[in-house]
Amino acid sequence: MILILLEEQQVIFHRWNNIPPSRTMSSWLDRPIKGVLLDITGVLYESGDGKGVVIPGSVKAVEKLKTSGIPVRLVTNETCATRTAVVDKLRFHGYKVSEADIFSPVPAAIAILKERGLSPHLLVHPAIEDEFKEVIKGSPSCVVVGDADEGFSFENMNKAFRTLLNMEKPLLFALGFGKYYKHQGMLQMDVGAFASALEFACDLKSEVVGKPSRQFFGAALSDIGVPAEEAVMVGDDIVSDVGGAQNCGIRGVLVRTGKFTAPWENHPVVKPDFIANNLAEAVDKIIEAQKK
Amino acid sequence: MILILLEEQQVIFHRWNNIPPSRTMSSWLDRPIKGVLLDITGVLYESGDGKGVVIPGSVKAVEKLKTSGIPVRLVTNETCATRTAVVDKLRFHGYKVSEADIFSPVPAAIAILKERGLSPHLLVHPAIEDEFKEVIKGSPSCVVVGDADEGFSFENMNKAFRTLLNMEKPLLFALGFGKYYKHQGMLQMDVGAFASALEFACDLKSEVVGKPSRQFFGAALSDIGVPAEEAVMVGDDIVSDVGGAQNCGIRGVLVRTGKFTAPWENHPVVKPDFIANNLAEAVDKIIEAQKK
Repeated sequence: MILILLEEQQVIFHRWNNIPPSRTMSSWLDRPIKGVLLDITGVLYESGDGKGVVIPGSVKAVEKLKTSGIPVRLVTNETCATRTAVVDKLRFHGYKVSEADIFSPVPAAIAILKERGLSPHLLVHPAIEDEFKEVIKGSPSCVVVGDADEGFSFENMNKAFRTLLNMEKPLLFALGFGKYYKHQGMLQMDVGAFASALEFACDLKSEVVGKPSRQFFGAALSDIGVPAEEAVMVGDDIVSDVGGAQNCGIRGVLVRTGKFTAPWENHPVVKPDFIANNLAEAVDKIIEAQKK
Repeated sequence: MILILLEEQQVIFHRWNNIPPSRTMSSWLDRPIKGVLLDITGVLYESGDGKGVVIPGSVKAVEKLKTSGIPVRLVTNETCATRTAVVDKLRFHGYKVSEADIFSPVPAAIAILKERGLSPHLLVHPAIEDEFKEVIKGSPSCVVVGDADEGFSFENMNKAFRTLLNMEKPLLFALGFGKYYKHQGMLQMDVGAFASALEFACDLKSEVVGKPSRQFFGAALSDIGVPAEEAVMVGDDIVSDVGGAQNCGIRGVLVRTGKFTAPWENHPVVKPDFIANNLAEAVDKIIEAQKK
């Protein structure tokens, strides 16, 4: 159902713009590609009831990269599930991955809180609350906002707001800063929106842990020892994935799966290095170019 | 209880800053004052259970202005109650006012929707929903966000978000754009924060109906036929009341009641023309100056 809708969107788009289905915005394949970063939801699987639906060709595409000797890391802003749960879901769909392959905001945030001796007030999904247990010590010295989903109630927003206002120097960490994502076929507002509400009310700027933060992309790249200029990021979020990566000197490829929408083909700010129909097409281009 | 807290805040502030309790930021009384605009909550009464608590001296202050022949209009961003309910509450506290004295965002918004032939999707308090009945015609062509209070659930925020995203040209009206207000002795996030979340998610800017919009202050002033430079606005919100008024050329007086907090005495952006302990003090200064 989702795929049919996406195809319809593409058809409409092509009728409007009269351009071929895939197009190269720049010579993105001229430079070597020695590492690939992949977003998970919308690139490897579509979210949905239970474990969601695998995106056709994506399992094979990840295998192809690995077989070609190109290291892959999964860079996600997923904060509704633990890394273990994400690995379980990926394995269910046939991906051969482990926790070490995944870069997600929660462990990154916990490392920051430990390093700076901060104790958080949490506005996060119940599924990940337990992971913060070790850093909760005494009264809160910061607020951590993740994708709390239904937890973004008026009451919980106000609790976070008042906690910030009571601090001498209010400190807000946002686990990602996305605008929206697709959940069970519907778009819903992401953490960036609710963090914006807190920022406005408290007159502050959040520290983003996750995409599009430079540190976050940097951590994934240093794990595979690949410099930004030799890496490619593939994602379905034009701002957080593509724009975020480009901002770090990483080439950004947008896929027409997940939450992709036709107007992004001509986004006013972010110009992807390549727009692919799906991960399979992007990976084929990458591998083909490496053979030359 | 609220007043005791405010006094404590003042004491703390004065200890820190060593300045007298009231101070003139500029010669605000040099120009004639021919009309006064007053915020309601936090100036005439403190919000609280039921009808709240009248602020000592404020009833008499409003009477004094009227007796002196200075016309008064009440300019409020109240969107949790109808104008009738606000008038009832004011009369309960002893204020001699009628609906015609009150400028609130709901009638102003309805007039705009009528004029532009727009049908709203509402994210507002249930108490004011009925007032929009006459302009709801067919599928929504705009979203109106007011202080929905508990109505700011994840579900309702997403409904508004998806409605905006489905429009060819998303259009969001915000009934005021406050950061927060005091409710039953507690600060809670105001409409500006939730409108900011929608703005971020949908990449748009809202049209503000209410303070601090220039049109809104302008409508109240033209009702009393007083030019901006001969008017004064008294409020407890440094940005929306004081900054908003000053932005229109109206002198802005901040009161140390309502949601006033000590750091506002040295606000980095807005410099009130005068900071008064309460409305009574501000009105005494105004009337005294008019006699000279």
